[in-house]
Amino acid sequence: MLRVAIIGGSGYTGLELLRILRGHAQVEVVAVTSRKEAGMLVENLFPSLAGFFPGLTFETPEIAFLAKRVDMVFTAVPHEAAMAVVPDLLQAGLKVIDLSADFRIHDQSVYEAWYAQHKAPQYLASAVYGLPELYAEAIKAARLVANPGCYPTSTILPLVPLLRQKLISHQGIIVDSKSGTSGAGRSPSMTTLFCEVNEGFCAYKVGQHRHTPEIEQELSLAAGAQVTINFTPHLLPISRGILTTIYADLMDSKTSTEDILAVLQDFYRKSPFVRILPQGTFPNVLRTRGSNYCDIGCKVDMRTGKLILLSAIDNLVKGASGQAVQNMNLMAGLAETEGLLQVPLYP
Amino acid sequence: MLRVAIIGGSGYTGLELLRILRGHAQVEVVAVTSRKEAGMLVENLFPSLAGFFPGLTFETPEIAFLAKRVDMVFTAVPHEAAMAVVPDLLQAGLKVIDLSADFRIHDQSVYEAWYAQHKAPQYLASAVYGLPELYAEAIKAARLVANPGCYPTSTILPLVPLLRQKLISHQGIIVDSKSGTSGAGRSPSMTTLFCEVNEGFCAYKVGQHRHTPEIEQELSLAAGAQVTINFTPHLLPISRGILTTIYADLMDSKTSTEDILAVLQDFYRKSPFVRILPQGTFPNVLRTRGSNYCDIGCKVDMRTGKLILLSAIDNLVKGASGQAVQNMNLMAGLAETEGLLQVPLYP
Amino acid sequence: MLRVAIIGGSGYTGLELLRILRGHAQVEVVAVTSRKEAGMLVENLFPSLAGFFPGLTFETPEIAFLAKRVDMVFTAVPHEAAMAVVPDLLQAGLKVIDLSADFRIHDQSVYEAWYAQHKAPQYLASAVYGLPELYAEAIKAARLVANPGCYPTSTILPLVPLLRQKLISHQGIIVDSKSGTSGAGRSPSMTTLFCEVNEGFCAYKVGQHRHTPEIEQELSLAAGAQVTINFTPHLLPISRGILTTIYADLMDSKTSTEDILAVLQDFYRKSPFVRILPQGTFPNVLRTRGSNYCDIGCKVDMRTGKLILLSAIDNLVKGASGQAVQNMNLMAGLAETEGLLQVPLYP
Amino acid sequence: MLRVAIIGGSGYTGLELLRILRGHAQVEVVAVTSRKEAGMLVENLFPSLAGFFPGLTFETPEIAFLAKRVDMVFTAVPHEAAMAVVPDLLQAGLKVIDLSADFRIHDQSVYEAWYAQHKAPQYLASAVYGLPELYAEAIKAARLVANPGCYPTSTILPLVPLLRQKLISHQGIIVDSKSGTSGAGRSPSMTTLFCEVNEGFCAYKVGQHRHTPEIEQELSLAAGAQVTINFTPHLLPISRGILTTIYADLMDSKTSTEDILAVLQDFYRKSPFVRILPQGTFPNVLRTRGSNYCDIGCKVDMRTGKLILLSAIDNLVKGASGQAVQNMNLMAGLAETEGLLQVPLYP
Repeated sequence: MLRVAIIGGSGYTGLELLRILRGHAQVEVVAVTSRKEAGMLVENLFPSLAGFFPGLTFETPEIAFLAKRVDMVFTAVPHEAAMAVVPDLLQAGLKVIDLSADFRIHDQSVYEAWYAQHKAPQYLASAVYGLPELYAEAIKAARLVANPGCYPTSTILPLVPLLRQKLISHQGIIVDSKSGTSGAGRSPSMTTLFCEVNEGFCAYKVGQHRHTPEIEQELSLAAGAQVTINFTPHLLPISRGILTTIYADLMDSKTSTEDILAVLQDFYRKSPFVRILPQGTFPNVLRTRGSNYCDIGCKVDMRTGKLILLSAIDNLVKGASGQAVQNMNLMAGLAETEGLLQVPLYP
Repeated sequence: MLRVAIIGGSGYTGLELLRILRGHAQVEVVAVTSRKEAGMLVENLFPSLAGFFPGLTFETPEIAFLAKRVDMVFTAVPHEAAMAVVPDLLQAGLKVIDLSADFRIHDQSVYEAWYAQHKAPQYLASAVYGLPELYAEAIKAARLVANPGCYPTSTILPLVPLLRQKLISHQGIIVDSKSGTSGAGRSPSMTTLFCEVNEGFCAYKVGQHRHTPEIEQELSLAAGAQVTINFTPHLLPISRGILTTIYADLMDSKTSTEDILAVLQDFYRKSPFVRILPQGTFPNVLRTRGSNYCDIGCKVDMRTGKLILLSAIDNLVKGASGQAVQNMNLMAGLAETEGLLQVPLYP
Repeated sequence: MLRVAIIGGSGYTGLELLRILRGHAQVEVVAVTSRKEAGMLVENLFPSLAGFFPGLTFETPEIAFLAKRVDMVFTAVPHEAAMAVVPDLLQAGLKVIDLSADFRIHDQSVYEAWYAQHKAPQYLASAVYGLPELYAEAIKAARLVANPGCYPTSTILPLVPLLRQKLISHQGIIVDSKSGTSGAGRSPSMTTLFCEVNEGFCAYKVGQHRHTPEIEQELSLAAGAQVTINFTPHLLPISRGILTTIYADLMDSKTSTEDILAVLQDFYRKSPFVRILPQGTFPNVLRTRGSNYCDIGCKVDMRTGKLILLSAIDNLVKGASGQAVQNMNLMAGLAETEGLLQVPLYP
Repeated sequence: MLRVAIIGGSGYTGLELLRILRGHAQVEVVAVTSRKEAGMLVENLFPSLAGFFPGLTFETPEIAFLAKRVDMVFTAVPHEAAMAVVPDLLQAGLKVIDLSADFRIHDQSVYEAWYAQHKAPQYLASAVYGLPELYAEAIKAARLVANPGCYPTSTILPLVPLLRQKLISHQGIIVDSKSGTSGAGRSPSMTTLFCEVNEGFCAYKVGQHRHTPEIEQELSLAAGAQVTINFTPHLLPISRGILTTIYADLMDSKTSTEDILAVLQDFYRKSPFVRILPQGTFPNVLRTRGSNYCDIGCKVDMRTGKLILLSAIDNLVKGASGQAVQNMNLMAGLAETEGLLQVPLYP
């Protein structure tokens, strides 16, 4: 039985980790920390969990005490907070899956240009970017896995196979993403009140969202060249799900939709959580809800020579907590799919 | 391995049965029938299932052929259609869990007053009303289980313990129910178009919904007297979930909220899918979504001497397909909770 | 041209007052105050208003200065804040329409039992309860109108004609109300975040909502006897709208749905904002959205002898700002419907 | 008083025309036709209109009879049906505003490549494309106005000024549009059922939506060169609104966001229904809901040299019925804004 703890478990990713781990046969959640909610029963903050974790209570994070009780830790705190706690967890001998952005960007100067001064840069080199479809072997050996962002997951998975095989140009890629509101977290805020989001739809942080350098890092590695993208996030009036629409220039105007689908199918033939959709069908976030799947579809527009790539994920699962459990499975030598084969909840 | 078939599997309850059974370790779905969709891959009609049932194809129902391949059948066809097919299934030696209303009402004349002429009344006496919290022993022995309606499930569970113990009057009970739209099914209809439902809320079939006699039958059995209720269904602009608000007169004005909660706790102490909420907290359909739970809360209004009872279920799970699997488990001698312990999907 | 100001205009009722008054031919909005937003352009806080109020800027409330510029004031501040400012406005010679609860309850002790100590009880006797369908003449002569609550408006309008004519018992009335989320205001709060409300539905403040005494006051006046009700509010995952379902005992079991409808039709034959629906049809909040209408339908359930009354309003219009403008029209000697004849926005 | 009729008035655009025209001081709606609903009171099909059009009844279209009673006609029938009826209306001396696509495409062969054989090509030359911001003078003189599509309106308005002034390349333009569900109409359909749309989001008709040639026609006219675009429509789980995100290459890398905003401001300085948003703010469909506004914002991404343009409209108002009334005003010599100055309904 793998013993795990969640640091900073009072938000939606913490709740989602608990939901998923409860159905995992080989894991025990030993501790959940939250400075703000310390002392409260987890099921009082999250009544949907009533009966599932009897007695589990939020505790103040104490690393020495945690280190005695668990093997692995999920850090679900905001960026900047993560880099303050992860070094101590690692030094205490724990393996860490960090859901923040703090260890995703390999280049310290890029991190600091988009986020803040890095307080633990000595770990950037050994942290593994936790996208199992690309880095499974490194993840298995890692002590610190940087769990990818939700938008990056939905963008990198469809593009990497095509950039690696140079089927599309690495220049001029446009990423138009639309995310459900749970990505904004559970803290009170006027902008995410029901009445401000419901029946609305808008772009935000146009041209300046912090997931941009993370996406560019991975696309550049795949392309073998510096990739600079347009990335426009939008806020959907739904709770869960990201749909990303990508526009890229084909290198060869004779490439067909079938060709692209065949390459994607082949690349992901051993990836249990990537579903390549049949020609003429396109992803819908509702068909991945509650599951760890990434659905990918595409269409070559012969009138313009552009490839339109579409992907759908549940931002809280494949875009956060599900992917974290997938990483945990790999790090612990378990089957990659253990605890993660829930069927999407439709409708 | 229990082998099952779904008759009439092209609607939401069929899809939900497939979703749940896919996570059940001891069941194999051998066949799904649909006259309308015969020949189509199940995952083409339901892309959320992609990869879960490779090759499974809707077939035309042929009972003799089914009888050779399966042990038990779920009938997910509309009322009136069910009573046309259930007798043949039973005669072919199959156990049947019928999700329609056709075998729920013991009294043929009541059925015929609210529905239509009954074509298989000879089975009414032996059909067992499939509410496991009340009738587990009979269900275990049954060949035909009539799976309860969604509104009745949400109404009967909170009321029966209190009627049996005569804590509330069996007269003057008011049931104000609100259901998500999936209860209306997947057939094209103007009244359930997105734009007709979204941002709306209304009552329908006021004073004449067909679930009324089903609720009254079970409440009367519990009370030992004829119960006649006011039942008002409303349509919620959500996909899943029923919240039922019940008003009943306390027999003794000194009965407190704690007293009622204690009786409910005791009655359901061995029922794994009923969660009695702590005093001062009330059910929310979002906290049962995707799960087989029925959450129950209550409050005594001392100003008026009324008890307000509230319950929440997912109408497609505890109100239909999840309860059907719970019945299947009992009929097949499996653990009642097998395949049904999913955590609610929140948010 | 009537000159008006809005005190505390940074919330949804303030925005809605501005929306409605912009279409009013005989009113000029001279000032909008907000301590928190003072100095900000109104259209920067409310971009939906872009172009409609050029230059209008939130200002700090200064009563002497306001008194020189305007004739009438809407106070859209929370209860307790209202009673701190209304006396000064009145003493400065302004007429006041107060959207808070502070002057709705005639009996100081009742107010204090449900709310807080009253700081301006000397105005309770002269404040007029601003339901124009009942009190138009008094409103015309009033200097202080207490604009009704949203739930009370939806409850009092259908019940008063029937209580006055003693068609229903004044005992045992049950009011099951469901409100959209804008009723909770625009302040940041975890419980009204999009993801907490969306796809959810629940009751709240069961048996203890502060609108209870306001409803009872008006029903008691109509019945000529003390009325005590059960009132259960619920939160709908929509932005606007209240649907109220009311259960009452008929005094005469031979009273028919037609009889009730005829009484309602007659009572409201001169009320431009009450629409009595034809037999067999029931209100839907979507059909009143954005308008000042209250739709009322009903059904006698002959099986139980109960009358089921249903009403729908837009909580921000007839339940707040639209009714306030209707009161303003009466107080200023304008046509009651001026500026208020918008067609509901459907879908 | 201008007398008008609506041909094919039983859908959402018919309802929306009625809503808008009811608030128009100089128009009388004399007739509404619908073969399917002939004989039914309009307010029985559309209860939101109760009380607004007493006695108005759907009638079977009879052109000779209509011609005696009205001056102008809105045709709100599907494409192909429109070209069957419009010639007769014109020959009867009526002015026509056609909301279908049948007379929008000047080039018959382009129409026929994307739609069907044209049955009234003789009117293509004289039909005026009804975008008042571009063609007000021609509209004033027209007998047949082809009211633009919803997606085209949201795309053409932001792009035309920039193409005319050659600030952006006419090549490589990408249009990523997201529409609310009312655009799909009111006919029963499985794909637009509440449960199929709610909590979902997907692209559809990728690379092959019929609004593509309409957009390209107008952009080509503005650019003075053939424009071929990528156009990807998506379905939003909201009732009303289109948000369009456009990516275009700047001709001069030194062009700033301010420069673009200044050009747009100047171009639309006399257009009452176009609102150019301040730098750093972006459109939200909720802020145009129920109104005839098109909100436009933009951002130059200096990292990539791309311009991101964003626009929001209400697809039923500026994208259909509101624009039709704007055209009617121009054709009848009325003020362009008459009946169209409703404030957006927020929230």
